[in-house]
Amino acid sequence: MLKSFIEVDPDSHFPIQNLPYGAYENEDGEIHLCSSIGDYIIDLFVLDEEGLFDGPELNNQYVFQDSTLNYFMSLGKPAWTEARNTLQSLLSADNAVLRDDALLRERIFKKRADLELVMPVQIGDYTDFYSSEQHARNVGSMFRDPENALLPNWKHLPVGYHGRSSSIVLSGTELHRPKGQTIPDNSDQPEYGATKKLDFELEVGFLTGSGNTLGNSISVDEAENYIFGLVLLNDWSARDLQKWEYQPLGPFLAKSWATSISPWIVTIEALEPFRTKCPEQNPKPLDYLHQKNRSTFDIQLDVFLTTEKQHSPHKICSSNFRHLYWTMAQQLAHQTVAGCNVQPGDLYASGTISGPEKDSYGSMLELAWKGTQPLTLPSGEKRSFIEDGDEVIMTGYAQANGFRVGFGEVTGKILPAKK
Amino acid sequence: MLKSFIEVDPDSHFPIQNLPYGAYENEDGEIHLCSSIGDYIIDLFVLDEEGLFDGPELNNQYVFQDSTLNYFMSLGKPAWTEARNTLQSLLSADNAVLRDDALLRERIFKKRADLELVMPVQIGDYTDFYSSEQHARNVGSMFRDPENALLPNWKHLPVGYHGRSSSIVLSGTELHRPKGQTIPDNSDQPEYGATKKLDFELEVGFLTGSGNTLGNSISVDEAENYIFGLVLLNDWSARDLQKWEYQPLGPFLAKSWATSISPWIVTIEALEPFRTKCPEQNPKPLDYLHQKNRSTFDIQLDVFLTTEKQHSPHKICSSNFRHLYWTMAQQLAHQTVAGCNVQPGDLYASGTISGPEKDSYGSMLELAWKGTQPLTLPSGEKRSFIEDGDEVIMTGYAQANGFRVGFGEVTGKILPAKK
Repeated sequence: MLKSFIEVDPDSHFPIQNLPYGAYENEDGEIHLCSSIGDYIIDLFVLDEEGLFDGPELNNQYVFQDSTLNYFMSLGKPAWTEARNTLQSLLSADNAVLRDDALLRERIFKKRADLELVMPVQIGDYTDFYSSEQHARNVGSMFRDPENALLPNWKHLPVGYHGRSSSIVLSGTELHRPKGQTIPDNSDQPEYGATKKLDFELEVGFLTGSGNTLGNSISVDEAENYIFGLVLLNDWSARDLQKWEYQPLGPFLAKSWATSISPWIVTIEALEPFRTKCPEQNPKPLDYLHQKNRSTFDIQLDVFLTTEKQHSPHKICSSNFRHLYWTMAQQLAHQTVAGCNVQPGDLYASGTISGPEKDSYGSMLELAWKGTQPLTLPSGEKRSFIEDGDEVIMTGYAQANGFRVGFGEVTGKILPAKK
Repeated sequence: MLKSFIEVDPDSHFPIQNLPYGAYENEDGEIHLCSSIGDYIIDLFVLDEEGLFDGPELNNQYVFQDSTLNYFMSLGKPAWTEARNTLQSLLSADNAVLRDDALLRERIFKKRADLELVMPVQIGDYTDFYSSEQHARNVGSMFRDPENALLPNWKHLPVGYHGRSSSIVLSGTELHRPKGQTIPDNSDQPEYGATKKLDFELEVGFLTGSGNTLGNSISVDEAENYIFGLVLLNDWSARDLQKWEYQPLGPFLAKSWATSISPWIVTIEALEPFRTKCPEQNPKPLDYLHQKNRSTFDIQLDVFLTTEKQHSPHKICSSNFRHLYWTMAQQLAHQTVAGCNVQPGDLYASGTISGPEKDSYGSMLELAWKGTQPLTLPSGEKRSFIEDGDEVIMTGYAQANGFRVGFGEVTGKILPAKK
């Protein structure tokens, strides 16, 4: 097993097998791209400045001297693979370049706990899919008809909608409870006020590199090559705003007030050892969505809650990325089938990832079943939705024999609505 | 009346009273920001390089030496007003600076007909509203119930959805008929193929400058100050894709394959002389949407069609921006009420602008009433939707006594679907 000269705890999310991408603000207030190993970040700007990315794809490209990953992402798979191989080599226990250069190590490795991570990518477009069958069934059962919970199109295409990019924020950003228009039960007069049904949605998003040009599509069997990496994503939702606004054009303000993502982008290469089977698809989708050797990744996903009384994070959901009915490749093939162009830095989210068990449902709406079955926390508090002062913490990792490849966390605390 | 030393025809869209913003590729292949007067573009890069934008807001800001307008847009209303005043002064008949400097004039004024205009702005997020009552009633009547054509929320909030930014293209871009999934009538088996119901939507969009920060909102009475200018917009739609995909999350691939905009952004200042009354609102909207001195602009909007047999553009629709039920200020106040942040270069479109008369409907869907009343062109051809080889030409202008302030055109020709 590949080992680094940096000591890494077996349950760390950041062994040498991971090497995710992020960005941080250094002591001079400059944004540097970085990776992470063990308890340290790795300053990629400094490594690049030292000329250590010297393979054919990256030599003299200065990709890590930018303040975002977009240019690196635009270079495509060969550059991504080369960067990963270079980094793994530089960090490995038998490579002396960094290992034996204390001065260089001091400029490159910094304690992660002391640093502020920042958004590492300029996100262009953001699509949110709806690809968990259990989630779609749960919502359909609650709001329509349990016998016909899935709409007729659901098993034929990965349903999705365009989301808002400007309000995508990094893990740790505190958010005020949003206000807006809702309709009281049995009334036809809408009201203005803070949402009473603030929810999270447990999702995973993927970010693309250079994609297709306008008018062309990406085939389902090639689509994974366009995926740079994955993030955890909390698709914050105001359910009462959503209920009133969403007909006929879909969710709008209920979602656009904030979406939180993890600071680390975990690459497809790092997730390769964790490939696993997907749910079978019946009916078979149309040819453009028919993927040979369909597979997904086994990524454990957990959601924890803290409140003003519940100080230690209490686990309220345990789900897995492999539950998704539609793969990322199918989502991307569908996104582009009509010719829509994909660009470096686009974000594509899964939709809420609910598993088959009640404690694997990925939103409060489902966990507390529309408020009819509130959760009871160890503190004695009950929760049907998220209250002011609550913090939602999502985490995700893939477990191998002896190491795990993780995302860290995406967290967000809800503050009271502004006056 | 303000006059320029440049001769301008009274029915030109570009008198000294307009001065819209755009961008063009110069003879060296560089992108320069520009404006337009009469038959000429005005190279703003050169004017800026010459130090002619020397007011307190723009001096040493080099805003017109960028390749997009975003930085200029981010500076806000005082900078926009100063730029307009400077330009009007430099172009006026009694100012000798350009008028009497033949060498400088040669570098600054170029025949518009010889040039390629390019996208002048990096569009971040794109929202498409649904703010024409007649359009919403027409669609509701066709697909739901003529007696209850408007959904319950429609008169309480400006319904809208997030659109796709990456596929927004400039006027003149030729587009291949998109392919995708549709459901044949009386079938539960979807099919893959080129859309059979390709439509345009006549819209006007506005672009914002710097807006609110995340978690704050823009009040309806201040909202207009955040609007930089307006463009014509064709929201291309594949109606058969839309019908199958849009439940429950709204339009997706039916729209995201392309949206065309006019190359010229006409500023709010240029439109000021054309303020007019809006349709009255009943019921009165909630306070956050209640706008004092609600007004709109009288902008004539026409749609023309050419086909392989119909060579001279044939007018198929004549509408007006003033028909919209919700104002731009109300749209922007609504967009931000839950805290969603607005950024320089965001685009907000009106939705199809249909007037009360049948020949003022802003889409083929409505003009040919769902295919039941095809249009007959002078060539003898019939049209229910847009066919391969057809070109849709939209134009818009506001008419004053002696001059008009116009957008030029947004055009788009449909090519056959790719193999």
